[in-house]
Amino acid sequence: MDRKLKVAQYGCGKMSVFLMRYLLEKGADIVAAFDVNPAVIGKDIGEIMGGAHTGVIISDVKDAGDIMAELKPDVCIVATLSTMADIEQAFATCAKNGVNAISTCEEALYPWNSSPAITQKLDQLAKENGVTLAGSGYPDMYWGVLIDTLAGSMHKITKIKGSSSYNVEDYGIALAKGHGAGLSKEEFAQEIGNYNDLSSEEQKRLVESGEYVPSYMWNQNGWLCSKMGLTPISQTQKCVPTTHHSDLRSDTLGMTIKAGEPTGMSAIVTTETAEGITIETECIGKVYGPDDFDKNDWTFYGEPETTINVNRPATVELTCANVVNRIPALVNAQPGYISTDKLPNNVYLVRPINEYIK
Amino acid sequence: MDRKLKVAQYGCGKMSVFLMRYLLEKGADIVAAFDVNPAVIGKDIGEIMGGAHTGVIISDVKDAGDIMAELKPDVCIVATLSTMADIEQAFATCAKNGVNAISTCEEALYPWNSSPAITQKLDQLAKENGVTLAGSGYPDMYWGVLIDTLAGSMHKITKIKGSSSYNVEDYGIALAKGHGAGLSKEEFAQEIGNYNDLSSEEQKRLVESGEYVPSYMWNQNGWLCSKMGLTPISQTQKCVPTTHHSDLRSDTLGMTIKAGEPTGMSAIVTTETAEGITIETECIGKVYGPDDFDKNDWTFYGEPETTINVNRPATVELTCANVVNRIPALVNAQPGYISTDKLPNNVYLVRPINEYIK
Ligand SMILES: NC(=O)c1ccc[n+]([C@@H]2O[C@H](COP(=O)([O-])OP(=O)(O)OC[C@H]3O[C@@H](n4cnc5c(N)ncnc54)[C@H](OP(=O)(O)O)[C@@H]3O)[C@@H](O)[C@H]2O)c1
Repeated sequence: MDRKLKVAQYGCGKMSVFLMRYLLEKGADIVAAFDVNPAVIGKDIGEIMGGAHTGVIISDVKDAGDIMAELKPDVCIVATLSTMADIEQAFATCAKNGVNAISTCEEALYPWNSSPAITQKLDQLAKENGVTLAGSGYPDMYWGVLIDTLAGSMHKITKIKGSSSYNVEDYGIALAKGHGAGLSKEEFAQEIGNYNDLSSEEQKRLVESGEYVPSYMWNQNGWLCSKMGLTPISQTQKCVPTTHHSDLRSDTLGMTIKAGEPTGMSAIVTTETAEGITIETECIGKVYGPDDFDKNDWTFYGEPETTINVNRPATVELTCANVVNRIPALVNAQPGYISTDKLPNNVYLVRPINEYIK
Repeated sequence: MDRKLKVAQYGCGKMSVFLMRYLLEKGADIVAAFDVNPAVIGKDIGEIMGGAHTGVIISDVKDAGDIMAELKPDVCIVATLSTMADIEQAFATCAKNGVNAISTCEEALYPWNSSPAITQKLDQLAKENGVTLAGSGYPDMYWGVLIDTLAGSMHKITKIKGSSSYNVEDYGIALAKGHGAGLSKEEFAQEIGNYNDLSSEEQKRLVESGEYVPSYMWNQNGWLCSKMGLTPISQTQKCVPTTHHSDLRSDTLGMTIKAGEPTGMSAIVTTETAEGITIETECIGKVYGPDDFDKNDWTFYGEPETTINVNRPATVELTCANVVNRIPALVNAQPGYISTDKLPNNVYLVRPINEYIK
């Protein structure tokens, strides 16, 4: 592509601050931006980015379809909410107006095993309109491409074990409560751990019907199996409480959690495959103690046992950089919902982003 | 390829023990093996691997050409020594007899910037005979593909800093001395650090003339620039002594190194590129203290700063698995000396190795 890439930003919250700056710094043009929040609609995107005005004003999301039909951006970045049910409408609007789209929505990375109906519908719509839809973010690399790449240095893998942690204090009271922080053990078991002992088939049914929204690792295990050519034969999630050895103050919850009481949860997703490789991944969301920090640790068991650690990853920046760096592959890809396990890996954009587009 | 892959093993020392077992476990056939050592020639390769006899007897290396011409293996693994000068003859023998070859020789990973004449000659020979030659090993992934892959999650890179360490006690007295362990600071400066202050052009001339054999990171920085699309404008190596805070016993050297005296060296290779990215990589070979262990740490500076650690990597097994896993790409590749920066990344071989060959 020998002209500037034209991008639309759908959702102008925290992520968009980085997404839009990264796009501009990689030589793209932002031609439109949309949001639902009245406090944001009408603002110049420069204001959102904390810099000079650009002349691009955030429009009301209800006009997104018409605006994109008129301006024909090459790609739209959807950074609104976290589930496919939340973003289906945004993706559909892009597809119907002939615009490729990629989202920071966590489930969108590999939605086939959690929202198959929505994903197949979007896949069909995308093919009819000749556009590509996908999801990316921090997990795309740090729970996905990184792991598949390193597997290329292993002789024999019997198990892949991943563990990633974050501090619920950073994400507000709703998320903290959603992780069971501050509940008693009994409450935790009833409210959070209630699906733990169901069979793989039962959990699959509950997840795919939308009744049980699984942790992100549920989708990640699907991504890893697809990318590595593995055949899942069972997948289960267990939510277990995390605890702290001493009383722990939570400002977000406005309370002190007693030693040994739930400070949050670890969602452990275990996938068995026909090839004999077990994938056991863990997403820990808890109130951090004084010595805790964000970790991303992965171990390959087999020959040879190999462990990598990514300490204190800058999750927000890495999420946005991964999404922006995915754009060339998205635009170059065949039409449909093409999850990133089917795309070539990201490369660092040394040159302007459009030079990576056929 | 719907038949078993046919492999020849050239050099039957420590690496071959893993290389041959890995080949068999991935469903390849070992059709021939060669060595120069009389104590090894005539042995069954099963003996070398510490298992049952296979019927394949190690031949004298002088017959390697004739045997390969007759048996026509699909690939030969060369695991003998560490420089291009050492393995040029082995690679030439393979090429002349129409056999692809890949080596554990460290310099072979990216020999363009240290032995250009030998490499261009082999490239020509390989093209004339329709074969592919390359080098791989632990650095191919842990100083190369891993770094290029993670760069795909970065927005902006100003510097890539890598550091890898190994214990010279594990590699015998020759290597320990070669790293300056046990020398005085003055001796170290004269014998090891003597090239430190030369310009990039002077060091380049000394390296390419074979007068100065650089550390492996000299080749690695070239690999990284090529793979990431960066243009080197200068490259220098500095060898600085490592020291320990207290007296340190070295069994290999049969002496105690005084606190503050050289226990080995760190070879730091700094490459500046036209794109403004600095690559600074460090290979530390020293006598380990009680708390030291092998590390592989890499940090991207820029946005966002990101660090990855690989503690206690099983270097020997990872070297051999990386070489074996490279074979499909080698056999599928176009003829010539095709260093792995030009090949698709390794994948984990879930299915027999021949199924990955066109
Ligand atoms: N790339 C990496 O990450 C990596 C990692 C580990 C090792 N390596 C390199 O791989 C090479 C092999 O390692 P190793 O531990 O297996 O060494 P090794 O135990 O010394 O084995 C080398 C074998 O090759 C034989 N040999 C030497 N020169 C030969 C020639 N011209 N023709 C035929 N055979 C010859 C040796 O015989 P003699 O014993 O009689 O000399 C020995 O049997 C070394 O250069 C090592 O530095 C690379």
